[in-house]
Amino acid sequence: MSLVSSVCTVDLPLQAADVEPESLLPIARRGEVDVALALRHAGPRRVRLRYEVAGDASAPAVFVAGGISAHRHVFANAADASRGWWESQVGADRSIDPTAHCVVSFDWIGADGTLDAPIDPADQADAIVALLDHLKIRRLHAFVGSSYGAMVGLQLASRHPARVQRLVAISGVHRAHPYSSAWRALQRRAVQLGALQCDGVDGLVLARQLALLSYRTPEEFEERFGAAQVREGRVHVPAEDYLDHAGQSYASRTPVDAFLRLSESIDLQDVAPESIATPVTLVAVEQDRLVPLADAYALAQRLRGETRLRVLRSRYGHDAFLKEHDAIAAILDEALAAEVAA
Amino acid sequence: MSLVSSVCTVDLPLQAADVEPESLLPIARRGEVDVALALRHAGPRRVRLRYEVAGDASAPAVFVAGGISAHRHVFANAADASRGWWESQVGADRSIDPTAHCVVSFDWIGADGTLDAPIDPADQADAIVALLDHLKIRRLHAFVGSSYGAMVGLQLASRHPARVQRLVAISGVHRAHPYSSAWRALQRRAVQLGALQCDGVDGLVLARQLALLSYRTPEEFEERFGAAQVREGRVHVPAEDYLDHAGQSYASRTPVDAFLRLSESIDLQDVAPESIATPVTLVAVEQDRLVPLADAYALAQRLRGETRLRVLRSRYGHDAFLKEHDAIAAILDEALAAEVAA
Repeated sequence: MSLVSSVCTVDLPLQAADVEPESLLPIARRGEVDVALALRHAGPRRVRLRYEVAGDASAPAVFVAGGISAHRHVFANAADASRGWWESQVGADRSIDPTAHCVVSFDWIGADGTLDAPIDPADQADAIVALLDHLKIRRLHAFVGSSYGAMVGLQLASRHPARVQRLVAISGVHRAHPYSSAWRALQRRAVQLGALQCDGVDGLVLARQLALLSYRTPEEFEERFGAAQVREGRVHVPAEDYLDHAGQSYASRTPVDAFLRLSESIDLQDVAPESIATPVTLVAVEQDRLVPLADAYALAQRLRGETRLRVLRSRYGHDAFLKEHDAIAAILDEALAAEVAA
Repeated sequence: MSLVSSVCTVDLPLQAADVEPESLLPIARRGEVDVALALRHAGPRRVRLRYEVAGDASAPAVFVAGGISAHRHVFANAADASRGWWESQVGADRSIDPTAHCVVSFDWIGADGTLDAPIDPADQADAIVALLDHLKIRRLHAFVGSSYGAMVGLQLASRHPARVQRLVAISGVHRAHPYSSAWRALQRRAVQLGALQCDGVDGLVLARQLALLSYRTPEEFEERFGAAQVREGRVHVPAEDYLDHAGQSYASRTPVDAFLRLSESIDLQDVAPESIATPVTLVAVEQDRLVPLADAYALAQRLRGETRLRVLRSRYGHDAFLKEHDAIAAILDEALAAEVAA
């Protein structure tokens, strides 16, 4: 076991230029780098990688990746004091603590909306390796991926086993389920339907709303929303207000082509679990409507390395990683502290 | 117990004009009648009821109703030799046998696309009573409803208990689940999105495809469909071919406003189980993604009359009533033969 190999290099000094004087936010920097990638479907391309590195640069490096709508800004830090998408798990006194870890993250390739061909979770793993090369990180202490991030983490462990010491894969597995793929294909149809109009945003709003239904559960909707009503001659369902807000918020910050590329990319997930010898902590959620529990069981049985499977029950289904703070924290604490055989 | 009260009147002779000479199809006739209804949201209206009556006119009358895409043509008969939507359960030597029953059915109000205001399952029940009056059927031996038909059957038993002796309610309950309502609301959004274009059909196609996902299950898709592929620069999901065929077929035979009215109508389902004293056989499917098993349990506990709950396991989920021929037949045989206390 060699912890030194998973430490961020110190010859890239972190900058704290954006830190306000009174700020106690963790030191961090953002950067961009153009790299050459051999994309599996799009061919050779130069792709811009946008990253954020935060915390103790001399500490073990932990790469954090979320779903297709996640991005490099994981938690509030000196480079960006706004809230990140995983404040519950990353930050001072959280499981991924920037005083104990060097936290690395990036924007998915395709997320800027400039790619015109399918990308694959394997492409993302290759892009991550290019980023680690740029950052001179030889080996990650851990890759912690949720949803699409878990899929990419499995690809990373399969394709580049020397670059990652352990993997935490939450609510993402080795394949896309055919039913979930059909659901996503219809979301992309909604985008196409919207694209036939002048205003292409409505299609993306609907696509996101449909996706949200797959991320959440009937149990949650039962608690939150009441019965339909007739309003001004049409039937109004209470959940529509929530879905409208969420869909419009997403569409306002997401290029249509970013959604299409990343949605497609999930459906291209295909990695042989037998090719992975890295220690893996799998987290599955019984109520997940996108990733059936049976697929997590199959993955756990087929991985070659030390494997731990944690099954949660959650009314938040696929989105449990964003909501079940304590349960996820306990799993992360254990996984990140575990000894890994050399 | 009074079986005579559930017999079709014989003073409306059945006509066999369309029967081909060699045909052995059950005698049947189709008809239309305009009735005045006090619709709960649309107000007083004259509505045209389109019905089919088949089988032995002197036998106990069984009303058969299916989902929102079902119609009066339940099985091949002398009035229409084409296949109906429930051949597996209705016909010679089936559970609902036209030599032993007078089979009554109609097109849902709203199904002709002419209604411009919300309709309610209670409106459908009132329409059925108007039809029974026209046909001089004082009391049904049984109402057998699946999906939306089950919802309407519960309304009939609640609002017009004298008109139905027993109810079989398959995969439909006393309310719409908030999650399922959200799913349907997004289907209606797809129609709206399509309506902004010249070609409104694409929106209805997408709406139906989304509905199909709610009718079926991951288990079935797992068996039928393989992994996504890249075809001519875009990601193609194998289930898309099936969904395209199904969506286009539906849209080619369904007015957009028919879909909207009937989809909305499901969301307006609201009947107090405590108001129902009619004997009810409930059928629920563990894999149903639209009608959670918990709602069927709640309904069974709250009904006032003799209640039997049958729970099926089926890879066809909500559509089990169209696919699980033997299991449904066994339940119908038992329910239709059961003695009912006077």
